[in-house]
Amino acid sequence: MLRQYIKTHKEPFDSYMMELIEKELIPKTLKQSMLYSLSVGGKRLRPIILFAVLETLGLDATKGYSTAAALEMIHTYSLIHDDLPAMDDDDLRRGKPTNHRVFGEAIAILAGDALLTHAFRLICQDEELNEKQKLRLIDCLSEAAGPTGMVAGQVLDMEAEQKELTLSQLKEVHLHKTGRLIEFSVIAAGIIANASEPLIQDLKQFSRHIGLAFQIKDDILDVEGERDLIGKDVGSDLENGKNTYVSLATLAGAKQLLNEEIETALSYLNKISFDTTLLASITCYIKDRQS
Amino acid sequence: MLRQYIKTHKEPFDSYMMELIEKELIPKTLKQSMLYSLSVGGKRLRPIILFAVLETLGLDATKGYSTAAALEMIHTYSLIHDDLPAMDDDDLRRGKPTNHRVFGEAIAILAGDALLTHAFRLICQDEELNEKQKLRLIDCLSEAAGPTGMVAGQVLDMEAEQKELTLSQLKEVHLHKTGRLIEFSVIAAGIIANASEPLIQDLKQFSRHIGLAFQIKDDILDVEGERDLIGKDVGSDLENGKNTYVSLATLAGAKQLLNEEIETALSYLNKISFDTTLLASITCYIKDRQS
Repeated sequence: MLRQYIKTHKEPFDSYMMELIEKELIPKTLKQSMLYSLSVGGKRLRPIILFAVLETLGLDATKGYSTAAALEMIHTYSLIHDDLPAMDDDDLRRGKPTNHRVFGEAIAILAGDALLTHAFRLICQDEELNEKQKLRLIDCLSEAAGPTGMVAGQVLDMEAEQKELTLSQLKEVHLHKTGRLIEFSVIAAGIIANASEPLIQDLKQFSRHIGLAFQIKDDILDVEGERDLIGKDVGSDLENGKNTYVSLATLAGAKQLLNEEIETALSYLNKISFDTTLLASITCYIKDRQS
Repeated sequence: MLRQYIKTHKEPFDSYMMELIEKELIPKTLKQSMLYSLSVGGKRLRPIILFAVLETLGLDATKGYSTAAALEMIHTYSLIHDDLPAMDDDDLRRGKPTNHRVFGEAIAILAGDALLTHAFRLICQDEELNEKQKLRLIDCLSEAAGPTGMVAGQVLDMEAEQKELTLSQLKEVHLHKTGRLIEFSVIAAGIIANASEPLIQDLKQFSRHIGLAFQIKDDILDVEGERDLIGKDVGSDLENGKNTYVSLATLAGAKQLLNEEIETALSYLNKISFDTTLLASITCYIKDRQS
């Protein structure tokens, strides 16, 4: 079911998002650099979650296309900046050269800045949403991505490199660094669907647990995954002395934590009085994925 | 008159803006880095223009405080990223160490990202503006600062380093790189004051010419200014082989261009049926400033 769902939406959404950049009068190298990183983007997890919540609440996924594009552009900018020599200094992302390896550092920094800035414009210009919805989306997105959200997570992550964290500190890093944008994907759908506050709160709890589950599974795949599938060397996190759920809780412990997060996420779905089959299958996908 | 005006607004606005960051729960180093660059910000030209246009149109300057703070945060982020080793590689900005020299490159990149992201949130949360105004402000600001605006200007500027530009190409660079945010300062005031479209268009033309005048004067000061006042070595642009109005049009030619831009700016003020004394004195300040 999920596979079919992703197949239905991934391609039209990707074309839609690329066209949002293609159609603008942007200096050539900058445009190429923005499109390059958007196109090696991979799973589109955040958009897919947003669409799935929308459909769960009875709306067509296309209602969320521009918000999802804004979200994916912000996710992509964060990867470009994160890969820079001054940050993680990565040469590869999903098996392809990172943006600064192709376009140079200066353009990579600017392409990130451009994607981040353009994201907010996309929401402003969405013709299907009303003014109240747009402002709430922009407010939530800037909060999720900014200095009290994702950027805070980046800083906490960097500062953690020099020390061993506790499990709850590691959770705190992930809740900010990756969790806040995943959380936004469900909140955004709730805003677009005019969902009630209690429903949005349940969805938010659901998203926090699938976000953590996603991260724990990443750490497990770093140990158990296949190089060709995960697009990087197996065991590289541990070799680099990174704090991971596996390093702090052992592989068996990490698997147990993964199960717990998945169970809790599903329990929040049970509280929701809509057909949550699709969201449940995303949850299971996060647990079982091989890449 | 202008001096008194700046004196009246600079200090309360600066405190207001710092408090917007101080009050948020932001990791310590990140917060320090954001505040550091905001506080060495210098002239506050863009906020002052915004306030002056608001008062010209009969509104209190404080009505524009949060928009001006958003604008100044975006201006500040652009300076932080522009100073990075991968970009201009500057050690000093206004005589003080640049952000990355104090906090390291990674934090400097993230502080820039954080200021940019937070800017949009400030406008969302402004309680004095209505929804339509806020959305239009966010739309215009993201357009002015993004890949078709300021970031485009950065790219054009970088690409110009390897070749000699024509005067009109140099203008094009400046209209994007610095002009678009100055333009936003007057458009924003127009939006906040519910000004008519023709009036906003006249203000926009006015802003384009003072923006260019500002840049021409910068190039003249690079040759004629005093080191202690301009905060960098005299003649450094020419030594670095940069395209400047002086290098392309001679010093006398640049002075003539400056006069022309000032005259044109003043002619647009004459079209406006409000008392434009304050805006005229800003225009003269731009022409006569020594730093």
